[in-house]
Amino acid sequence: MRKTGKQKVNIYIIAKEAGVSVATISRFFNRKSLVKKSTRAKISEVCNRYSYEPSKIASAVTTKKTKTIALLVPDLEQPLFIDLIRGVEFILYQNKYCMSVFNAEQSLEKELEIAKIIDNRFIDGVIFSGVYGNEREEAFITEMQKRKIPCVMVDRIIPNVNTPYVSSNDYLGGKLAAKFLLKNNHKRIGIISYDTKTYIFDQRVKGFTDVLNLNGIGEEFVLDVPLEYRKIEKSIHSNGNKILEKKPSAIFTTSDSIAILLMSFLSEKGIKIPDEVSVMGYDDMIFSRFSFPKLTTVHHDMFELGKVVGKNLINKLENGKYSKRVQILNPNLVIRDSVRRI
Amino acid sequence: MRKTGKQKVNIYIIAKEAGVSVATISRFFNRKSLVKKSTRAKISEVCNRYSYEPSKIASAVTTKKTKTIALLVPDLEQPLFIDLIRGVEFILYQNKYCMSVFNAEQSLEKELEIAKIIDNRFIDGVIFSGVYGNEREEAFITEMQKRKIPCVMVDRIIPNVNTPYVSSNDYLGGKLAAKFLLKNNHKRIGIISYDTKTYIFDQRVKGFTDVLNLNGIGEEFVLDVPLEYRKIEKSIHSNGNKILEKKPSAIFTTSDSIAILLMSFLSEKGIKIPDEVSVMGYDDMIFSRFSFPKLTTVHHDMFELGKVVGKNLINKLENGKYSKRVQILNPNLVIRDSVRRI
Repeated sequence: MRKTGKQKVNIYIIAKEAGVSVATISRFFNRKSLVKKSTRAKISEVCNRYSYEPSKIASAVTTKKTKTIALLVPDLEQPLFIDLIRGVEFILYQNKYCMSVFNAEQSLEKELEIAKIIDNRFIDGVIFSGVYGNEREEAFITEMQKRKIPCVMVDRIIPNVNTPYVSSNDYLGGKLAAKFLLKNNHKRIGIISYDTKTYIFDQRVKGFTDVLNLNGIGEEFVLDVPLEYRKIEKSIHSNGNKILEKKPSAIFTTSDSIAILLMSFLSEKGIKIPDEVSVMGYDDMIFSRFSFPKLTTVHHDMFELGKVVGKNLINKLENGKYSKRVQILNPNLVIRDSVRRI
Repeated sequence: MRKTGKQKVNIYIIAKEAGVSVATISRFFNRKSLVKKSTRAKISEVCNRYSYEPSKIASAVTTKKTKTIALLVPDLEQPLFIDLIRGVEFILYQNKYCMSVFNAEQSLEKELEIAKIIDNRFIDGVIFSGVYGNEREEAFITEMQKRKIPCVMVDRIIPNVNTPYVSSNDYLGGKLAAKFLLKNNHKRIGIISYDTKTYIFDQRVKGFTDVLNLNGIGEEFVLDVPLEYRKIEKSIHSNGNKILEKKPSAIFTTSDSIAILLMSFLSEKGIKIPDEVSVMGYDDMIFSRFSFPKLTTVHHDMFELGKVVGKNLINKLENGKYSKRVQILNPNLVIRDSVRRI
């Protein structure tokens, strides 16, 4: 029997022709050593005759592995996450894994819809960096646990959820920012932060205020702003007078996005940075390096976090266990031009 | 025979128990109407007995479809692409497709490696937005054509490649920018662009200079800069004196990234924008809205491009044909504060 161009050859035909079971053919392609030498020769001969190469799909039926990992990010409108995507892609590509990206769009409902898509789809494991500060923020993780899909968290810590995570030491980052401002003799200091109900932002603010308080300084104000750019801008504008009345010599923000918007607001008001007000960011996003003045900030290495979390999940998938359940990277200070010495 | 907790149930067991072929089971789950009513009842009964639900993986063996699309972007260091990812994810999610993102990292070699991963993997089709200005830029597309993997291009036009594409009218965008500068009485105008060997940047510059020339004005200079931020900055700095000697009243850039870096450079030199030099961008990235001064630019809708290209590819995969082979979106002018009236 000769193969014609149009005939579809599949694993069933190969098994039948070779006189063995489909499972044996699967073993032949996935774990050759388990197949008897004489059987191997027979299968090889049939495969050659049909020019048969196993599709990865068919092999996935038996291995139950697709070498695809899902990455769930809270909001693709935040340019910060492109560095996370880049880091995860970097390590997955090296290990010949694919990365399926999902955008939760700040919606718990979408997160749970994504959980359903991931379930029984083409996904070996999940990297989760979910919606911030939701009251049911553990819901997605619970779904993955129910379905026994390995899941790791990145840049997110959800109390009472026993899931491995990779995060940055946000408390330390806050401390570094405060120490730097104190070293430069700032005493009238304000804070603008994303919602501190979210653990990572809470930690940044706590680290910052703990250092201030240890030095006998209280913050002039703490302004909580929403995550969306337009809303941050609006919030800064509508609180602008209150901010300026406090006459801060420096303002610490828990994200470069907030810092950049704050600098625009101050510039519009004719206030010179850093001569009249110093501004300190957090994250060190790519465009923070190119603002005017260049932003002094805390480097929160999303690219590295992506690499580390990807590696940990691959370890679990390939070797059955995580390299570590908790990994914390240390941020570092990046001194540029937006903070002056008093 | 009763199902025990530990017994693995698969399509083969179900087929055997129901006394039908694996293909019939597959039809039962994928195109029920093709299965006889009496056979359906029998299969249903066996499935219920074993609590069997077909895995999407197994179903993919017969349908050969995984409902996963690959998105290949040239460089994830460019925040512009997060809008493309967001647009593609938006439409894919609506249609219950997954999106595998690959970063070509400006490397043709990596593009070709990605082609191998995509081949016979878990990918129904590919959205390609490849490395810019490479001499062998058609190589990836050729690989997809050889392997008969449906492929569409977004924001890229490669001459002599018969692949459907969605793009923006970059020539029109260049014209809009030039007309706006002329309307504001600018006559000494310079251009800073990414490598014009790449079609889209060439078109932006052509549209721009065609309008200038029609009005009897020649550009003061055209500076080509590389794609990487650090290199753009270096290039602007090392050509800074030459740029300033030409005394342009306005500079058109073919990307907001270049515009932002140019504004930083001018601010550092103490040159006021737009009072002394006007700056015009291209793309309308999210952070262009929050620069100081706010950037006047051409809106290049990457989110919309992502949606349109995703929809076109899904049409091909679901209905066997593309909705259109060529789709061109029109950019529009976004007037903010970085261009002054002379």
